[in-house]
Amino acid sequence: MPDECLAALRARFGDRCSTVTSVREQHGRDESPFTHVPPPAAVVFAESTQDVADAVRLAAASRVPVIPYGAGSSLEGHLLAVHGGLSLDVSRMARIVATHAEDMTITVQPGVTRTAVNRALEGKGLFFPVDPGADASLGGMCATRASGTNAVRYGTMRDNVLALEVVTAGGDVIRTGTRARKSSAGYDLTRLMIGSEGTLGVITEITLRLHPLPESVAAATCSFAGIAPAVRTAMAIIQAGIPIARCELIDTHTVRMVNAHSRLTLPEQPMLLMEFHGSATDVADQARLTEALALEQGGEAFAWTTTPEERTRLWTARHNAYFAAVHAYPGRRIISTDTCVPISRLADCLLGSAAEAEATGLPHYLLGHVGDGNFHFGYVIDPENTDDWRVAEALNQTLVRRALALGGTCSGEHGIGLHKMRFLVEEAGDGAIAMMRAIKQALDPLGIMNPGKIFEI
Amino acid sequence: MPDECLAALRARFGDRCSTVTSVREQHGRDESPFTHVPPPAAVVFAESTQDVADAVRLAAASRVPVIPYGAGSSLEGHLLAVHGGLSLDVSRMARIVATHAEDMTITVQPGVTRTAVNRALEGKGLFFPVDPGADASLGGMCATRASGTNAVRYGTMRDNVLALEVVTAGGDVIRTGTRARKSSAGYDLTRLMIGSEGTLGVITEITLRLHPLPESVAAATCSFAGIAPAVRTAMAIIQAGIPIARCELIDTHTVRMVNAHSRLTLPEQPMLLMEFHGSATDVADQARLTEALALEQGGEAFAWTTTPEERTRLWTARHNAYFAAVHAYPGRRIISTDTCVPISRLADCLLGSAAEAEATGLPHYLLGHVGDGNFHFGYVIDPENTDDWRVAEALNQTLVRRALALGGTCSGEHGIGLHKMRFLVEEAGDGAIAMMRAIKQALDPLGIMNPGKIFEI
Repeated sequence: MPDECLAALRARFGDRCSTVTSVREQHGRDESPFTHVPPPAAVVFAESTQDVADAVRLAAASRVPVIPYGAGSSLEGHLLAVHGGLSLDVSRMARIVATHAEDMTITVQPGVTRTAVNRALEGKGLFFPVDPGADASLGGMCATRASGTNAVRYGTMRDNVLALEVVTAGGDVIRTGTRARKSSAGYDLTRLMIGSEGTLGVITEITLRLHPLPESVAAATCSFAGIAPAVRTAMAIIQAGIPIARCELIDTHTVRMVNAHSRLTLPEQPMLLMEFHGSATDVADQARLTEALALEQGGEAFAWTTTPEERTRLWTARHNAYFAAVHAYPGRRIISTDTCVPISRLADCLLGSAAEAEATGLPHYLLGHVGDGNFHFGYVIDPENTDDWRVAEALNQTLVRRALALGGTCSGEHGIGLHKMRFLVEEAGDGAIAMMRAIKQALDPLGIMNPGKIFEI
Repeated sequence: MPDECLAALRARFGDRCSTVTSVREQHGRDESPFTHVPPPAAVVFAESTQDVADAVRLAAASRVPVIPYGAGSSLEGHLLAVHGGLSLDVSRMARIVATHAEDMTITVQPGVTRTAVNRALEGKGLFFPVDPGADASLGGMCATRASGTNAVRYGTMRDNVLALEVVTAGGDVIRTGTRARKSSAGYDLTRLMIGSEGTLGVITEITLRLHPLPESVAAATCSFAGIAPAVRTAMAIIQAGIPIARCELIDTHTVRMVNAHSRLTLPEQPMLLMEFHGSATDVADQARLTEALALEQGGEAFAWTTTPEERTRLWTARHNAYFAAVHAYPGRRIISTDTCVPISRLADCLLGSAAEAEATGLPHYLLGHVGDGNFHFGYVIDPENTDDWRVAEALNQTLVRRALALGGTCSGEHGIGLHKMRFLVEEAGDGAIAMMRAIKQALDPLGIMNPGKIFEI
């Protein structure tokens, strides 16, 4: 970063512009195993839209890259300063701007996390459903088009954002929509920004669509003799049109890790973990229909409940899966896959890849939002071991090519970031990539917005 | 159109390139009262993606405007050749490309109409819900981000399209997505094209998301002493979280027209027409809850039924409203408004505008998708009478400004076209317009794709 840029940032932001090594290092990584040295040259902690606009303008004046930073929970290397520059931390922009319960909307700053949104809604009979697992920031969830366990029923960030305020690459502040539920007024800039991974501007305010809390919630679990019958049950549930609210698969490896981590004694078999939302009659109907489908596939010990404590108990394995994985392999890192295929192709995509992963001997586990056709292998690697990297990347490449051949996508919800750029080219094709690049060039002519992500610069 | 361009089009398309006056005139108008003379210089009837690509390339070589044409049912002047050029008619591209009932998707060519999609799905237990009233083409419905009566439950074209094939302004063929239900793979080109009104490319194939046919469907109607209690009932239904599938308002003028057109004897009062989807228990619950809310507002003669014949009878007034309006005023034309506001602001937006319309004495009627906060005044004008135009435009302007002040949009579902360009500037602001223009310039550098729509060139 040129001295004059750093001086200007310090003059504007005082001690909210940090060059302390530990702060820079913290902002130069994410939850992925990917690394880049050096970290960003400086970190600015924005507290307002004006701060963001001023930081972008000062960076633009010296053509310094700007990397928006929320909660740091990305899984695809989005936050790494691969072309140097400034990390623009919006985590202090964590205010609920306005709650319109009467319209089922809430407007928040980008540093607000999803759990904070739901805390703010307590007692209002409403909730925000998108749940990627991590307590991600809403800004980051927009930027990566996040989804998670509830998407099978409530959709993704694409479906649950009404409007954004954005600071453009030129430092202008724009609004991309209104609080109306629908609009045909011009290009859908909201959806263009959602999934743009910080490469087109910085999201500074978000209006979310909320949903009524269901009258009744039922949790259910079922174990299976193998992955195949579990996957086939998930497919049958979706194809039967059951409006399931969550439909998660965990494999035997995940169950073992969870048993070890949480001192449980779950049968060490693949499990489906499900949730049903609706009236009391509805959820009972849904649970019974689902049980019948699971039994057809040989499902064992199907259990369901609507009481909060029992629901929590049944879902322990899923809630603890991430931490169980982190703790199961100290010093190791996880490469997460993220393919998503049409539901009829789920078994074709998943089963072959599971067998291939087993065959390598590389430690791994599998969990997924199988109701959406989306699942994640976690390949457990020693980041110092080039063989581990090679094996994991080869498995991922085979999986992605299989998913693409089956009409699917290389990324269901994590984004492209640093890690899936070559897969995006295979998936989208040269023409669509050219269109994306033309948009990038038009909206960020200096190429300062999170350069080197989504596509090579 | 330069002679060499016309010659090249004739050489490529033979008698599928027409310059017959009646054909050109038919392609130079839409369902709106807006006119432009002369009509397009020629019409090409495309029968394949390759035809579209070739037509665009030949037009681009001479910088000739290209105006995609589907069913001709636009309401905002989208099809008028305001800068001359070629009408590219895709109505013969009317093939169902692939039905994947097991994934609840269908892939169609752009000339397929929404009723044709649903005919193709008969017996499969699935339907495509987006219903703008007119039997529009799917290409046009994508281009205008159409919605209609079912959107309150099932969303708009934004929510129900998985992927597109598009011919770019340069004549390249791209795909914007896959059949996976969700994706975070790069910029959301699908959503960018949806609502782009032919200004960024020509849509040549569409993959739609389908929904399971509901087990039971109930239709309901209720009359009210005035518009205010009808609107307040609609607001109460949405705010109670009732998952109503359709929630339509028609005013006294509309009821009168329908009575005259269909020889009915409906009470000449504002009516809500509603539909509920779900299990038999569900729809009964929804109908009873709704009845209670209607009664609180003084609703009269609430009736509901689940038998198909009775449902059709109850909904006659809504089904026939458009034709009743067309026939009620021979020689007149309709200017349709299209504002949409957050549901809590619906009464504030609608009631004042209804009073203002009454006060002018201009014949008009009101109908709307009030569950979404979206409604349409139809101002009935004599197209030769400049006073009628002036009064209607003044009413519309006041309405739009009111909607924008209440957090709404100038267009819920018809698009901007020719007619709402100045409103779009007021709604989106200069910065967002500049971003839209930058995208347009980047993707259509020659400015040949439906120029003069959405924004002035």
